[in-house]
Amino acid sequence: MNLRRTYSGRRVLVTGGLGFIGSNLTRALVELGADVTVMDCLGENYGGNRRNLAGISGRVKVHVADVRDSPRLPQLVRRQDYLFNLAGQTSHMDSMTDPQTDLDINCRAQLAMLEACRKHNPAIRIVFASTRQIYGRPDYLPVDEQHPLRPVDVNGINKLAGEGFHLLYSRVHGLEATALRLTNTIGPRMRIKDARQTFVGVWIRRLLTGEPIEIWGGGQRRDFTYVDDAVEAFLLAAARPEAIGAVFNLGGPPPVTLRRLAEVLVEINGGGEFVIRDFPSDRRKIDIGDYYADDRLIGRRLGWKPRTDLRTALARTLAYYRAELRHYI
Amino acid sequence: MNLRRTYSGRRVLVTGGLGFIGSNLTRALVELGADVTVMDCLGENYGGNRRNLAGISGRVKVHVADVRDSPRLPQLVRRQDYLFNLAGQTSHMDSMTDPQTDLDINCRAQLAMLEACRKHNPAIRIVFASTRQIYGRPDYLPVDEQHPLRPVDVNGINKLAGEGFHLLYSRVHGLEATALRLTNTIGPRMRIKDARQTFVGVWIRRLLTGEPIEIWGGGQRRDFTYVDDAVEAFLLAAARPEAIGAVFNLGGPPPVTLRRLAEVLVEINGGGEFVIRDFPSDRRKIDIGDYYADDRLIGRRLGWKPRTDLRTALARTLAYYRAELRHYI
Repeated sequence: MNLRRTYSGRRVLVTGGLGFIGSNLTRALVELGADVTVMDCLGENYGGNRRNLAGISGRVKVHVADVRDSPRLPQLVRRQDYLFNLAGQTSHMDSMTDPQTDLDINCRAQLAMLEACRKHNPAIRIVFASTRQIYGRPDYLPVDEQHPLRPVDVNGINKLAGEGFHLLYSRVHGLEATALRLTNTIGPRMRIKDARQTFVGVWIRRLLTGEPIEIWGGGQRRDFTYVDDAVEAFLLAAARPEAIGAVFNLGGPPPVTLRRLAEVLVEINGGGEFVIRDFPSDRRKIDIGDYYADDRLIGRRLGWKPRTDLRTALARTLAYYRAELRHYI
Repeated sequence: MNLRRTYSGRRVLVTGGLGFIGSNLTRALVELGADVTVMDCLGENYGGNRRNLAGISGRVKVHVADVRDSPRLPQLVRRQDYLFNLAGQTSHMDSMTDPQTDLDINCRAQLAMLEACRKHNPAIRIVFASTRQIYGRPDYLPVDEQHPLRPVDVNGINKLAGEGFHLLYSRVHGLEATALRLTNTIGPRMRIKDARQTFVGVWIRRLLTGEPIEIWGGGQRRDFTYVDDAVEAFLLAAARPEAIGAVFNLGGPPPVTLRRLAEVLVEINGGGEFVIRDFPSDRRKIDIGDYYADDRLIGRRLGWKPRTDLRTALARTLAYYRAELRHYI
């Protein structure tokens, strides 16, 4: 697939484009010659960080604006060829303590964005960042796209609605949308201040600042997608007509227990400590236990597969934050 | 089950209590000796109608207020023993043309209501009016509670989220909530101005005003719950501890095609006409085809079953509107 031919000279809007996956995607799009507009609220609890566009900021239009500010959406979506819709609230715990904010971002703003597209740019091609969280506690492993959808927290309920709106607008209103259900994604430019985006972020920060990693439980098996692989999936999904109206899981290399993940991280780092703790009770109630994705469908349909093994992913991530730590804490 | 013992002297809040099922429930609660507060926005596109409480209005506190007006919710839920949460936007077509309003009522306001309960009255017992719409087009018939949830319109997506919040708050926050998934419910006090609540309403209005009934398609099989039976299910669900955290389908007597339903209606009315029309294309896209519920679970657990046969249900409904037509058109 010649992605350069798809994206060169094309107008692309990336919501959440100063965030983790959004900024990596933006960097890839700029490399491919796209004319990229980034929308990001830069809210303190979210993933946005201006450092994420270091070195390319002059080649990208950045709108600091909130997806909840729906009057601005029409002008932003007009004349775009592609929309990568990644703006979201990702913290499961925040969704429980402040459920209305999660709803406004992950559900209400998504509908407003789709309405803006339907009214002002119905030919736009959309890829939505959905999440494995909508499956809830797996009935079986690996989890494929047919698995029942039974979210266990407010975030999962709202993301399910957000994904549902995208697929509905594709089916009923003819918008061309695809949803990718992401699992843990890791790599450079993720939030490491806290566990709001991924617990791996806070583990890495602790390793690099000489504090012990805290593992809750430790026996849970999870899979991890390296961010470059996730970016490739977004680029392919928007480029390929077979993906219109479809939903795909993203997975990673073979799953590991969280304890094993910590061991590998400490080893690659050349030192560090971890401690195993009991699950805090408020987290246990919304924990999904073991999860890993069956990502063969996107393999068969779009030829995507995770290319980056876990050690490489962790080594690159650690190297990035060793150099860039001060911009992220 | 002695419902009088459960409800006599107890404080009950009914949202949507001037509407169809809400007002019938309110009337039953007043009969059982409950101290009922009704909340209803009386919006022109919804089911609320002051006539629905004719004869008992002096025995019910009526707050004309919108569930979207969340600052009022804490004072309304405080000191209540029961909450029957029936306020909702029910029109599938309106949910497609004005999706944000549907979201605000069926999704955002539900979360606000649950937050108000969690913070101000966590001991309240809640029953939520959910809908068969969240199943989408059935994979099999009759549809039981294990059927996949794949809503086909904005209303279904938002109601699924609203139901999800109720069950989540029950599981995680210890609120005692039950969800009932309603199918077509018919009977006195339903909206008959248009098809926003049920197409049967508009059929009855047309019969009584001498206009032909319009049937779209006609071959679809559907089931119909008589409102008194639905009311009994709400009363039982809140009364029985086994129902906490559970979700139950409501069904009715054996399903009929829409064409057959029209024939029976015309016959009971002693005259009238119907015409079969092709489905309008905007409706076809969100139509669910055949649907009827498997309601054996609530039968086994709570002893509920639909008692009213279809002819009786239709005869009572027609008799009501023959006497009351001017208050409903």
